[in-house]
Amino acid sequence: MRIGILGTGHVGQALAAGWSRAGHDIVIGSRRPDDTELRTELKELIDAGVRLESSGAAVAHAEVVVNATPGTVSVALLESIGASALAGKVLLDVGVGFLPDGTLSHPGVSLGEEIQRAFPETPVVKTLATIDRKLMIAPDSLEGPSTIFLSGNDADAKRTVSGLLADLGWPKESLLDLGGIETARGQEHYALLFIGIAGAIGSYEFGIRVVPPTAS
Amino acid sequence: MRIGILGTGHVGQALAAGWSRAGHDIVIGSRRPDDTELRTELKELIDAGVRLESSGAAVAHAEVVVNATPGTVSVALLESIGASALAGKVLLDVGVGFLPDGTLSHPGVSLGEEIQRAFPETPVVKTLATIDRKLMIAPDSLEGPSTIFLSGNDADAKRTVSGLLADLGWPKESLLDLGGIETARGQEHYALLFIGIAGAIGSYEFGIRVVPPTAS
Repeated sequence: MRIGILGTGHVGQALAAGWSRAGHDIVIGSRRPDDTELRTELKELIDAGVRLESSGAAVAHAEVVVNATPGTVSVALLESIGASALAGKVLLDVGVGFLPDGTLSHPGVSLGEEIQRAFPETPVVKTLATIDRKLMIAPDSLEGPSTIFLSGNDADAKRTVSGLLADLGWPKESLLDLGGIETARGQEHYALLFIGIAGAIGSYEFGIRVVPPTAS
Repeated sequence: MRIGILGTGHVGQALAAGWSRAGHDIVIGSRRPDDTELRTELKELIDAGVRLESSGAAVAHAEVVVNATPGTVSVALLESIGASALAGKVLLDVGVGFLPDGTLSHPGVSLGEEIQRAFPETPVVKTLATIDRKLMIAPDSLEGPSTIFLSGNDADAKRTVSGLLADLGWPKESLLDLGGIETARGQEHYALLFIGIAGAIGSYEFGIRVVPPTAS
């Protein structure tokens, strides 16, 4: 599958590595694709066949566009690329935005919803927002089954994204479809509990599992 | 232990039942302790020895005060009882407040922090905010171990609350101390993911477990 990843940070890099390993055709989009320092940082990925191009080129390349940019700037960046360039592509959104005071930049309507509203021709699926980047692509490194959530209005887009999650090693039983894109609020707001847990256990490397009642 | 429970709703009732069974001395506080309908609703608890009195009387009785009132009214209710009546008592806060549009009534500073700030002489411990009332007092009904979080500034108060959680059946391994009262934000914000999960699985009866990485 042709995947365009927006965001050259740790999350974008991890997802590029995971999907590249699974045989997908990856372009990472950047405002400065020719930056020497950035190309050096991404050398391992580039050697593995991942291309570093402009954000517009990454989107043009993609069947699935991944938003791995900071949540505070995501909508503006996507708008600079334009709705017509994004139309008809699946947008997999992992972004969460924080303000300097540690509160969410989208405390009411979620970032996922805001993107969906701004780009009605682009089905948005929010996922992977509740787990550290290292574990996103290494679910086997957890002690036991962990839950990954999906939020989105389009069933086909959620199927596509579920396939991409499987390619990262997430078993079908781990995926929980929360419903429409408005349920992205839960995934994004969980970030505050995520930070609390990370502080308590001294690591970002943990999952959460939804524990059902004993079968009666 | 002498426990005063503020809030006659389902959460307050469940906790009264759980701690009454464990042998604690419970007074539920209400603005209308003589209301016939309310006394009928609470008949089983009253028959078991739980008293229904005024909110002020419940606090006067208590070593541990439990806030099980709607988060939108909690601070005003506690202020009507007064800081001097609450001073020196542990306040176990389970409240989460929602606005009519489904967003949190305390999206920045949490309710837990707001209570702690308003009543500096009363150590506040936020807990049990991430689980349904039925499961609060029946952790064994879950398929596997589930995590319960604690947030608060006072170590002694957290020890007292941990003991009360043990009395409800929560094993020590289930408890995760997140740190100071500011970490109540995570517990409260999780409410939105809780609602999303409940919608997806069609039940409020689930826990979440923090899944650590495989021991290396």
